[in-house]
Amino acid sequence: MTDRIVIEGIRPSTPNGYPAKAVVGRATAVSADVFRDGHDVLAARVRWRSRGNGKGKWSTALMRPLGNDRYQAVIEPAELGAHEFQVEAWTDRIASWRHEITVKLTAGQDVELELEEGALLLEDALSRAERADRARIETAVASLRNAQASAESRLSGALDPALMALLDELPDPSDLTRSAPSPLWVDRERAAVGAWYELFPRSYASPEQGKMGLAGATDRLPAVANMGFDVVYIPPVHPIGRSFRKGRNNSLDPAPDDPGSPWAIGAVEGGHLALHPELGSFSDFDAFVARTRTLGMEVALDYALQCSPEHPWVTEHPEWFHHRPDGTIKYAENPPKKYQDIYPLNMWPADPGDRQALWQACKEILDFWIGHGIRIFRVDNPHTKPFSFWEWVIHEVQAANPEIIFFAEAFTRPKLMARLAEGGFSQNYTYFTWRNTKAELTEYLTEIALGPKADYMRPNFWPNTPDILSGILRGGGPGAFRLRLVLAACMTPSYGIYSGYELCENQPMSDTNEEYFESEKYEIKDRDFSQPGSLVPFVARINDIRRRHPAFSDLGNIAFHHSNNDQILCWSKVDAAADDVMLMVVNLDPHNTHEDTLGLDLPALGFEWHESLEAFDELTGMTFMWTGANPYVRLDPGLPAHVLHLRRPGRGGTVT
Amino acid sequence: MTDRIVIEGIRPSTPNGYPAKAVVGRATAVSADVFRDGHDVLAARVRWRSRGNGKGKWSTALMRPLGNDRYQAVIEPAELGAHEFQVEAWTDRIASWRHEITVKLTAGQDVELELEEGALLLEDALSRAERADRARIETAVASLRNAQASAESRLSGALDPALMALLDELPDPSDLTRSAPSPLWVDRERAAVGAWYELFPRSYASPEQGKMGLAGATDRLPAVANMGFDVVYIPPVHPIGRSFRKGRNNSLDPAPDDPGSPWAIGAVEGGHLALHPELGSFSDFDAFVARTRTLGMEVALDYALQCSPEHPWVTEHPEWFHHRPDGTIKYAENPPKKYQDIYPLNMWPADPGDRQALWQACKEILDFWIGHGIRIFRVDNPHTKPFSFWEWVIHEVQAANPEIIFFAEAFTRPKLMARLAEGGFSQNYTYFTWRNTKAELTEYLTEIALGPKADYMRPNFWPNTPDILSGILRGGGPGAFRLRLVLAACMTPSYGIYSGYELCENQPMSDTNEEYFESEKYEIKDRDFSQPGSLVPFVARINDIRRRHPAFSDLGNIAFHHSNNDQILCWSKVDAAADDVMLMVVNLDPHNTHEDTLGLDLPALGFEWHESLEAFDELTGMTFMWTGANPYVRLDPGLPAHVLHLRRPGRGGTVT
Repeated sequence: MTDRIVIEGIRPSTPNGYPAKAVVGRATAVSADVFRDGHDVLAARVRWRSRGNGKGKWSTALMRPLGNDRYQAVIEPAELGAHEFQVEAWTDRIASWRHEITVKLTAGQDVELELEEGALLLEDALSRAERADRARIETAVASLRNAQASAESRLSGALDPALMALLDELPDPSDLTRSAPSPLWVDRERAAVGAWYELFPRSYASPEQGKMGLAGATDRLPAVANMGFDVVYIPPVHPIGRSFRKGRNNSLDPAPDDPGSPWAIGAVEGGHLALHPELGSFSDFDAFVARTRTLGMEVALDYALQCSPEHPWVTEHPEWFHHRPDGTIKYAENPPKKYQDIYPLNMWPADPGDRQALWQACKEILDFWIGHGIRIFRVDNPHTKPFSFWEWVIHEVQAANPEIIFFAEAFTRPKLMARLAEGGFSQNYTYFTWRNTKAELTEYLTEIALGPKADYMRPNFWPNTPDILSGILRGGGPGAFRLRLVLAACMTPSYGIYSGYELCENQPMSDTNEEYFESEKYEIKDRDFSQPGSLVPFVARINDIRRRHPAFSDLGNIAFHHSNNDQILCWSKVDAAADDVMLMVVNLDPHNTHEDTLGLDLPALGFEWHESLEAFDELTGMTFMWTGANPYVRLDPGLPAHVLHLRRPGRGGTVT
Repeated sequence: MTDRIVIEGIRPSTPNGYPAKAVVGRATAVSADVFRDGHDVLAARVRWRSRGNGKGKWSTALMRPLGNDRYQAVIEPAELGAHEFQVEAWTDRIASWRHEITVKLTAGQDVELELEEGALLLEDALSRAERADRARIETAVASLRNAQASAESRLSGALDPALMALLDELPDPSDLTRSAPSPLWVDRERAAVGAWYELFPRSYASPEQGKMGLAGATDRLPAVANMGFDVVYIPPVHPIGRSFRKGRNNSLDPAPDDPGSPWAIGAVEGGHLALHPELGSFSDFDAFVARTRTLGMEVALDYALQCSPEHPWVTEHPEWFHHRPDGTIKYAENPPKKYQDIYPLNMWPADPGDRQALWQACKEILDFWIGHGIRIFRVDNPHTKPFSFWEWVIHEVQAANPEIIFFAEAFTRPKLMARLAEGGFSQNYTYFTWRNTKAELTEYLTEIALGPKADYMRPNFWPNTPDILSGILRGGGPGAFRLRLVLAACMTPSYGIYSGYELCENQPMSDTNEEYFESEKYEIKDRDFSQPGSLVPFVARINDIRRRHPAFSDLGNIAFHHSNNDQILCWSKVDAAADDVMLMVVNLDPHNTHEDTLGLDLPALGFEWHESLEAFDELTGMTFMWTGANPYVRLDPGLPAHVLHLRRPGRGGTVT
């Protein structure tokens, strides 16, 4: 015979029982379906604890009914790392009795027996109550049995609200039921919220001042910090192979001074544990990391498990590579394309000992760079390595360093992306880069922010990357760049841009190739960030708005609002606890002005249907006075967005 | 280290790992997400076996890719009872190689090494191939290594389609991965498909001919069979309590000859194992069951676990009831309503021995009536008894008698209904009775027929029951009754009506009470089924159409088609294997004629977008010639439905 109470549909959860994800010190809603046969009132609570160093103490939170047999509580894990939670439920016999006797009394029925039933229930609760609470319970029992008084007064003498609240939280052991433990991984905030900026350090070398790439890039950091970024992501910093090196524009015939792709890792100077000599020394690297931290940012380092033909592993560990019948090592291919400058690792050698040695060596790379202050790894192409490798290595690393963040660069099929997230990646690149229309964006955000994947998969939106210049950015003007920035930065808590975005670099490799013309992957770029018309102030403003408005720190608080015009997209982000209501309106058409009358769901925003609102545009500093749910908007493609702070008139607000 | 291949999202399944449901001899689609890292081609198959008397032999079926990493196969269990299935997947190295070499050859690249790689792969397959197939593999290997011939001819000599098909089904043991076994319960067809008719046998007594209820009802059976029904459902046939007996119209002061509600079970004559004396003897009962079977139908008996105050259990087993502080037994209540004629059973007595004895006694009731030929139980209010009781008793009964069907009368909250289905009920009553508008019906069918619950919960649609006269049937005319009948009968494979429906009985108890005026629950009804204007011929026609068209035997094959008019609902049911395409169009407004131009999804129906169709109306025998996806329809409230057999002109069809 199993339990009588059913607890199911627990969230947060993942499809295969891996840990769901939360952020330390931030509210996480835990919910479940809780029911039993019949009509008795149930009570439910969640209890949770850290599983970090030994098992922590359980904390509990009473769950409240949401309707349709679903219950929810909000928990706030206080530590990093592994946690577990359970949903507990029991039949609340006292609440059931309270409901029954109240209805009967109202209907004028005799309740003598019910009063005694209540007294018996309270007596039963006596034994499990705290000693300090027993006197109040005994008083309630006495009131119920006070045959001199009226039924109403006997009952009201017992229904002391404080006593009832106390009893609500007292589990009844007679049918207390517990769900199996649910694992929960608690990250630091940066795993969920952050503005990222990608730069190639080698492009910032200043030979005339004797500065190597990393030293030059260190000088660039204050400007990045001034734009309001939280994370500086740098491509691989290791020696670059020379054989089959790619030249400018991915050509097969490099000039002697072409630097090669940073992802062709390994040369005579070393492999994944070495620094490219032209980037500088380890003290330059450590200085770069330290300066980033001083500026309130941190470095994300690329983690790309692949080798150039000169990588030391190729000769030291040929068993870690794929071999062909003629004894050669298999280079990377996507037939008919060939990538002779890259040897993929064979992450699943037939010999388990080889596999173990290789995986351990891969983990040592992470440990090494953690030793140099790295706390975030941007992982290149994780979907071409086994899921079980990632599960293992992330678990191993985070068990020792729960603050380490892994960011999956898997631009691949949806189920592989979700599985990487489920297996432990802290966040994922997404399809945002290719979602352009109102329908596409609405559907995609609904899926990733409001669907079950949001329990464990954290999107990080990038309008561009060194590999991808797509959609309206191809040949687009500043308006297009502003538009995609507002979309990325104001839809999800994590977003990033690759440097050059703020200069509206817009020339693709070709009509059919998404890479950049004269891509920085294959050559040094010398940019003039002070050029007039750059988007630097706009980027800084967006990041400043994100920091000042807590509504942007949550993923699941997005809601779309009606617009009649297919080029006008309108969404809100609300942090009810912080009373922060943000409404974004964008014109998706980079070429034409559009206008519309919106259809706002005002109650969802915390307002009455016919209330007057102040809509303060954080982008322009203008204030619109709106009454009702149907404000008129008009957006020019040059400044194609409103980022509106909605507030009651006279309340003031955060004006820059 | 876990497996490299991921198999997840397996369907059919239930949320908590209970058996999904299938029907013997009918196709069941098994699907799963199957993927691994990288870009290799995967192969997958499902294997299944009976777990009935000992474990059966595994059968297998190759799964085909549906896109988005989902694979599907169709299996057809050949036996009743418990089964299990597993999804197996492996990297299809030969298919991956085939793809790679073909692309390279097309691009004019040198493939000498690839030819040898293929030869090695085929040699590896040799060891696991059937002896009879080895010679063809060896021939292929020789062709690949025939250095005299061109690469094209060496390859084409190896890519013999029959050999490739053979290799496709040959699992590669080097990474063969298996999902955990998924349980599957296989029912007989009636668990999923059937037309039900409910009648109160006592209303068919013919004292002047010396006939008791059951004998008279036996005479009524041919008429029920002639209407095309499959199941005759009868309310409890046990002695009825006399204390607090309800009179006509649920009154508290019964006349001496008022028969009482059949659900007030138990009297001095006996309890759940006894027959009400006025219904006849057990030989009458057995004759009723036998006659039903002779007519191609079967009997569903009510199983209501509750007792009148005179039930023998009340004195024999007071520990099976709820007691109050004054020692009395607690009668049923829904405060402030009191049901003094019913004692609920306490299905969870504190003493486990008492619980076991009670549950066993409840099971013995089922065994007893199974001994009298009953194979279907319609279970009254199962949601007020513990889920674990149902799981236990259904499992026990079906382990011995896998043909027994349990039909849950749980008009309760959605999660309880689903849990009853998940725990073992063969089918469920639904909310159909209260779903009236186009939006309500579309949403509800989408949920229950196309959502994940369809894997284990089988709806049975009832336009009316003895307790429920709702919606447009209240005071409605024959058109309303035709309409609700077409909806129930042509949307789901199982549906039923309570007798009197065909006479358009339409008088509710009151404006606010859904029961019938002069409900048959409290009095004997004498009906004239030969009255002019009865819907008997219409009901017979509907059931005949259902039987002739296999499309009506499936639940998940429903699709809705566009209509502009909110009162016009259009849906199709397609059995592609049987080439059976049915299209239903109904006018939901019982008062006005409506017309519309439909928007059919012709490809989903198996036609071209601009094809000419013959739409044969099974209700009227009329044929409409349609061209394209936008036929015009016009429906009068008197005959508010088309039930159209769509076919290519000149193909003929099943015309009555």
